[in-house]
Amino acid sequence: MLAVFRSFSTATCRRSVAAIKKRTMAGTAQKMDIRGIYPPIATPFTEKEEVDYQKLNDNLQKYAKIPFRGLVVQGSNGEYPYLMAEERVEVVRRVREALPQNMLVMAGSGCESTIATIQMSEQMAAAGADAVLVVTPCFYRGRMDSKALIHHYTKVADSSPVPVVLYSVPANTGLDLPVDAVVSLAQHPNIVGLKDSGGDITRIALIIHKTSSEDFQVLAGSAGFLLPAYSVGAVGGVCALANVLGREVCQLEELYLAGQWEQAKVLQYRLIEPNTAVTRKFGVPALKQAMEWFGYHGGVCRAPLRPLSEADARALRQDFSSNGWL
Amino acid sequence: MLAVFRSFSTATCRRSVAAIKKRTMAGTAQKMDIRGIYPPIATPFTEKEEVDYQKLNDNLQKYAKIPFRGLVVQGSNGEYPYLMAEERVEVVRRVREALPQNMLVMAGSGCESTIATIQMSEQMAAAGADAVLVVTPCFYRGRMDSKALIHHYTKVADSSPVPVVLYSVPANTGLDLPVDAVVSLAQHPNIVGLKDSGGDITRIALIIHKTSSEDFQVLAGSAGFLLPAYSVGAVGGVCALANVLGREVCQLEELYLAGQWEQAKVLQYRLIEPNTAVTRKFGVPALKQAMEWFGYHGGVCRAPLRPLSEADARALRQDFSSNGWL
Amino acid sequence: MLAVFRSFSTATCRRSVAAIKKRTMAGTAQKMDIRGIYPPIATPFTEKEEVDYQKLNDNLQKYAKIPFRGLVVQGSNGEYPYLMAEERVEVVRRVREALPQNMLVMAGSGCESTIATIQMSEQMAAAGADAVLVVTPCFYRGRMDSKALIHHYTKVADSSPVPVVLYSVPANTGLDLPVDAVVSLAQHPNIVGLKDSGGDITRIALIIHKTSSEDFQVLAGSAGFLLPAYSVGAVGGVCALANVLGREVCQLEELYLAGQWEQAKVLQYRLIEPNTAVTRKFGVPALKQAMEWFGYHGGVCRAPLRPLSEADARALRQDFSSNGWL
Amino acid sequence: MLAVFRSFSTATCRRSVAAIKKRTMAGTAQKMDIRGIYPPIATPFTEKEEVDYQKLNDNLQKYAKIPFRGLVVQGSNGEYPYLMAEERVEVVRRVREALPQNMLVMAGSGCESTIATIQMSEQMAAAGADAVLVVTPCFYRGRMDSKALIHHYTKVADSSPVPVVLYSVPANTGLDLPVDAVVSLAQHPNIVGLKDSGGDITRIALIIHKTSSEDFQVLAGSAGFLLPAYSVGAVGGVCALANVLGREVCQLEELYLAGQWEQAKVLQYRLIEPNTAVTRKFGVPALKQAMEWFGYHGGVCRAPLRPLSEADARALRQDFSSNGWL
Repeated sequence: MLAVFRSFSTATCRRSVAAIKKRTMAGTAQKMDIRGIYPPIATPFTEKEEVDYQKLNDNLQKYAKIPFRGLVVQGSNGEYPYLMAEERVEVVRRVREALPQNMLVMAGSGCESTIATIQMSEQMAAAGADAVLVVTPCFYRGRMDSKALIHHYTKVADSSPVPVVLYSVPANTGLDLPVDAVVSLAQHPNIVGLKDSGGDITRIALIIHKTSSEDFQVLAGSAGFLLPAYSVGAVGGVCALANVLGREVCQLEELYLAGQWEQAKVLQYRLIEPNTAVTRKFGVPALKQAMEWFGYHGGVCRAPLRPLSEADARALRQDFSSNGWL
Repeated sequence: MLAVFRSFSTATCRRSVAAIKKRTMAGTAQKMDIRGIYPPIATPFTEKEEVDYQKLNDNLQKYAKIPFRGLVVQGSNGEYPYLMAEERVEVVRRVREALPQNMLVMAGSGCESTIATIQMSEQMAAAGADAVLVVTPCFYRGRMDSKALIHHYTKVADSSPVPVVLYSVPANTGLDLPVDAVVSLAQHPNIVGLKDSGGDITRIALIIHKTSSEDFQVLAGSAGFLLPAYSVGAVGGVCALANVLGREVCQLEELYLAGQWEQAKVLQYRLIEPNTAVTRKFGVPALKQAMEWFGYHGGVCRAPLRPLSEADARALRQDFSSNGWL
Repeated sequence: MLAVFRSFSTATCRRSVAAIKKRTMAGTAQKMDIRGIYPPIATPFTEKEEVDYQKLNDNLQKYAKIPFRGLVVQGSNGEYPYLMAEERVEVVRRVREALPQNMLVMAGSGCESTIATIQMSEQMAAAGADAVLVVTPCFYRGRMDSKALIHHYTKVADSSPVPVVLYSVPANTGLDLPVDAVVSLAQHPNIVGLKDSGGDITRIALIIHKTSSEDFQVLAGSAGFLLPAYSVGAVGGVCALANVLGREVCQLEELYLAGQWEQAKVLQYRLIEPNTAVTRKFGVPALKQAMEWFGYHGGVCRAPLRPLSEADARALRQDFSSNGWL
Repeated sequence: MLAVFRSFSTATCRRSVAAIKKRTMAGTAQKMDIRGIYPPIATPFTEKEEVDYQKLNDNLQKYAKIPFRGLVVQGSNGEYPYLMAEERVEVVRRVREALPQNMLVMAGSGCESTIATIQMSEQMAAAGADAVLVVTPCFYRGRMDSKALIHHYTKVADSSPVPVVLYSVPANTGLDLPVDAVVSLAQHPNIVGLKDSGGDITRIALIIHKTSSEDFQVLAGSAGFLLPAYSVGAVGGVCALANVLGREVCQLEELYLAGQWEQAKVLQYRLIEPNTAVTRKFGVPALKQAMEWFGYHGGVCRAPLRPLSEADARALRQDFSSNGWL
């Protein structure tokens, strides 16, 4: 694993994606470096629940000015299970076109079957994705043991034109990618890291420990435990809250990199309740509502997701205002 | 709810599907009667994991000779999350073509989004499905409260050309369709029943009790609790084990209908372990393995589902043989 | 297992406890027959939270007139974890003294440690208990595997002067007594049955199936699934609701024994919501509140259990009145 | 909350317990400062499962030489649910007598009922406990909402002669002390902190954030997440592993206090697997086995806890040796 405690300039890590790809593809070369902060972007819809590419583009223009390492397109917050296959690819294409080349596009290509995931990964790479984020298949969770998951990810990584990032999000999938599976998969030359959204910090630390001899990086899957994740060796985060408070999440990264633990801690505190509100507590409808308050396009979700009730919207607002953000 | 204790001839309940549809579509008419036993059929694949329509047809010829009420196509055991949309529709079409007209085809049309579920329901009806079985969307399970689920099912039922059967399968979805949502949805003229696979018999009895003033039927979602479900008013079952021991599951129905509780109980006992083995314990790979033993085509699953280990296959065999089936 | 479908007179099963004990103690004799309905009685307290023996006695006088098989003293509804050891024994003594000899006193003697459970069982037997009901120890539930539980129950049964009934109540303990442990323990000459409060009817049926060659009986642990439990071979129930609707629960037993399944089903329906209300939904405070409405002494619980809120009390009342009981 | 980032000498925090008590008892004075590392000591038994006070004393002599802040007596690892009330008090008395006065004795006084907890707290204080650690009552967990728990802890704290530390250990109790209850209780003058063993670092950070205006401290309940807990403001830990690797856990504290995050991280890594092995994975029998390997008296557990199997003992050893401790 790369040392993360040396002096580190956020600016200099924005090396060209082309160079990263080149190094990654060579057999013995270093894998893609994915450190940094990523918002897993929401997908704006029109009132008729069609993808609103204009509003998406507006959001992207704003995100391009924040020192993100890149964007995750079609993580859980992107309502990807509600998009048709063609929509999933088209959204990736639009994001890649709109975004500066120095920002990574990490595209969520996970499907339930291995073959569909392979095809989706290829299509997303063709559409310009720099890496693919592959969620654990979960419908038959009783059979998704390490053996099955190692087989799945190996097949996907073998054929993917771009690096693969593992993705464990038990709140949605009811399934944790087992530690031993992660350790085994970390050896694959085309698997570069893990986004862990479960928030079990002991597990995250153990994974980092047991993959320390590999070129493998771990990203916190939420702003709620970003600082503790840094404390045990995570290299960044994919944070729903960064759709709303992007600069502030990046500031937490900077404080950590500068060794300013006390200030980082105080900032971390203020992010927890807003983060929980837009994720576990109220979900994607809340994320989209909060985006509206902070100058982004959020708007409606696709059904069956329903808009927030007024009471929930008030509670959401309170979670931001009581921490000084509204 | 229809009285289930009157003398009841299995033969006479095989009235024409056309007649049922006619009655159902009329505003004040009785809803479709779905009582009886259904195997949720497996989808055979070739070694290359393509749908094997020939083997599927072979199985259907055998199932046509068993006194099933119909078949469920693309329940959880059909690996539907691993099929492309076109494959899902094509399988339904082939089943409808191969099956005698007096057997119902209940097609699993559930998708994560409401709009995709509506479209899939329409396509399956056009392909010949007599009813659609709609699983609860579940990825954003934290937001799938009664309000969201009532909205989802109402939209689907409003537009479906054929009757809708609700489907709650918490082992796969991590979500129980709430009782109050079922009670509300039972009033919809195009929602005819519920397949409940959770096995909470108190919940099943309560649902039957609270929908007793509606024309609404409940099917047990497993052979493991079929007799207790009958004892509280269920009208049949969708039973994975019926893919393997179809006649025996139908025999349990007949014993119950004849009021032969003691013999029914002894048969029920012998079905529990084989049933658990092909569902919760070893899943679809075990179902397909057992099908091979009993003269059906089972074969491989699509990845990421893996074949049974030899040890698991032995344990599976033991669960059948210790109950006198092998 | 004893045949339960033969004509069976409730009256004749009230043979003397002395005779039962005599047969049980003899090496090859039949074990105690525990079939029937039992309320797991509540423990009345004074306003100062001391055991109110007068009110307890008043309740017992009323229970003595209901065709119960006996009473369970210090099941979960008796607040036994809140009683001092001496109180637990004294309550058993008082119940035995007040109750007619033909009614069984089954006393909850479970403690966390094996040695304490052994001592408590001996003390309760000395105080007049006819059998002891032994809950699974659960604090170290991660270590309470079949091996540990078989060891525990074997030691307790080896030394208990009266027969032992196993007790699995996962809602309180977070632990199901494993099927294989039950099957093993059923062979012990001093272990006569199981009270299963989990409500997993498939599990209950499997346990009865797999112990059918032993002299071993299963009691449903709740009125919510009493009829389905009968349908798979249970011989009675320990039902919190019987503290309130004792005659009605006994009537369900009678309807089942008379083979009147349809009437039994209708009665079963009406018991579900009141039963859930006084157990899972609102707990012991609700049971005690409902007892007051039906002419029994309920009163306060020991802290930390709190009285019902007014809103909860109204909802509780609704669960009784909407089913025609109030 | 006390600033934890200022230069801080472990030595100087060993001020006299008498002085702490004096300050705590005064109305407006600062509460007891509980920062530091504590082993929750195991209770040695003889082969006959009686408390072995000689072996206990031997262990205490060794612990007295490690820079612990104090000991927890009868946390979950002390098998307190298996001790009689008199044994619980006597063990506390022996520990207090054997230990240097500058080491705190924090005694686990939690019982299921409020009244028993009050009495036990008084007895333990009389036996010399400096503070009491009060686990959440849990048997009626469905009723243990914030209201009930706030009532319970308030009553206990009102009457306890020594400060109260809240204790949340969901692995054993199936219950998390709710955040809002902790925030409310933090205002009580006799409640000084929380031991949180759940390991949800987001929750821990949020609790520290929301109690930051109170004189209230949080201790990590495990060595597995000690460093991340420090990163969000915890002030120490009660760590089962400190029974075995006491100096090493204290070294982690020192590295953190010295701001040596990188070295702390590497040490944290090496503690995770041994910690998991003696807690969640293999439990108290493993803790006692490991104690033997490291020169302490461990020995047998009380039944129903069973000794480790040979296979488990090997796996346990591997978890220590692969991290360089054996």
